[in-house]
Amino acid sequence: MTAASAARLRRDKDGGSRERLIEATAVLLRRQGYAATGLAQIIEVAEAPKGSLYFHFPGGKEELAAAALERSAERFRLGIDAFLQGDVDAAVALEGVVDALAAELEASDFQDGCPIATVALEVGARGGALSTLCQLSFGRWQAVIADKLVRAGRSATEAAEDAHFVLAAVEGALMLSRVHGSTAPLRATARRLAGLLAQVGAD
Amino acid sequence: MTAASAARLRRDKDGGSRERLIEATAVLLRRQGYAATGLAQIIEVAEAPKGSLYFHFPGGKEELAAAALERSAERFRLGIDAFLQGDVDAAVALEGVVDALAAELEASDFQDGCPIATVALEVGARGGALSTLCQLSFGRWQAVIADKLVRAGRSATEAAEDAHFVLAAVEGALMLSRVHGSTAPLRATARRLAGLLAQVGAD
Repeated sequence: MTAASAARLRRDKDGGSRERLIEATAVLLRRQGYAATGLAQIIEVAEAPKGSLYFHFPGGKEELAAAALERSAERFRLGIDAFLQGDVDAAVALEGVVDALAAELEASDFQDGCPIATVALEVGARGGALSTLCQLSFGRWQAVIADKLVRAGRSATEAAEDAHFVLAAVEGALMLSRVHGSTAPLRATARRLAGLLAQVGAD
Repeated sequence: MTAASAARLRRDKDGGSRERLIEATAVLLRRQGYAATGLAQIIEVAEAPKGSLYFHFPGGKEELAAAALERSAERFRLGIDAFLQGDVDAAVALEGVVDALAAELEASDFQDGCPIATVALEVGARGGALSTLCQLSFGRWQAVIADKLVRAGRSATEAAEDAHFVLAAVEGALMLSRVHGSTAPLRATARRLAGLLAQVGAD
């Protein structure tokens, strides 16, 4: 690395190329997964200087992927939370979430499904930073759903089980919709979940 | 290729290395996905002669992966069908399916989830042999579930929607269970689906 490129790297340390590397990696991981995403492609999509990846992420691809997944997962959690917070009915709120996911999928020509599911399936429960991050992320999303159900009158135990179910159904529907290039599985799932959640607090 | 190796390849054309290549690829695609699965690893796991891969699959990795996914998907369909055929109650039958999936996941130390989901998410709806195969496979599984619901008294339209939902929930639960290294998401999903399906034919 030349002194000039080192200086440039330091200059944009707090934004610039570091930011772009994270965002580019988030997009690539979401659309094609971890193994298919190479460092050269990340650098190209991020329009980042060549040496910047190891400068900002000495741990290389895994460290960068972890940062990107954490970013995506937190954004996804906030997205869910925006629909579920407040007094709005749980069934209505969840339909809002699924509608937003369907719209995002369609707008991206069926490329942008769940931001972490592909990597989650690639790494499974084998341990390591990415596996742990996927577990934590799904756990946090589930907690947001469970909180909503508790506020709607479910017991904590029932809410946790329902949240497992709701998250599973939404994740599976996102996958099927992406593969089929159709929002039909998401729409069908939203209707069925709304029926199920309409009973929350009513029993 | 020497004459001797060509002869050996021809000899085991109908079984032997061709079979082992398909089965090894099916296992690797299920556990780690398409991009992470290299030809060298396939040949090693299959204990197949080096030249055998391109001898049996001139189209290389994609052709072999298509054969492996087709094999896995048909086996999975037959597995679901074995539980759903006959007069057994739809809710009970579906719990049987989910129990079997949970048992398979546990027995493999949470490695063997859905045999095609990882590849399906990697390739998405982008077209090509693998994408089409994933679409067809999910469609066939959905049809098996829809058939059962029609036999249980649902209208064809309702059954197709319910089958989208059931398949989505099971796929999502398989993913979450695999990532968490726990069958809790599958168990929660089985209970909720049983409740939903218990209403089939009753309304």
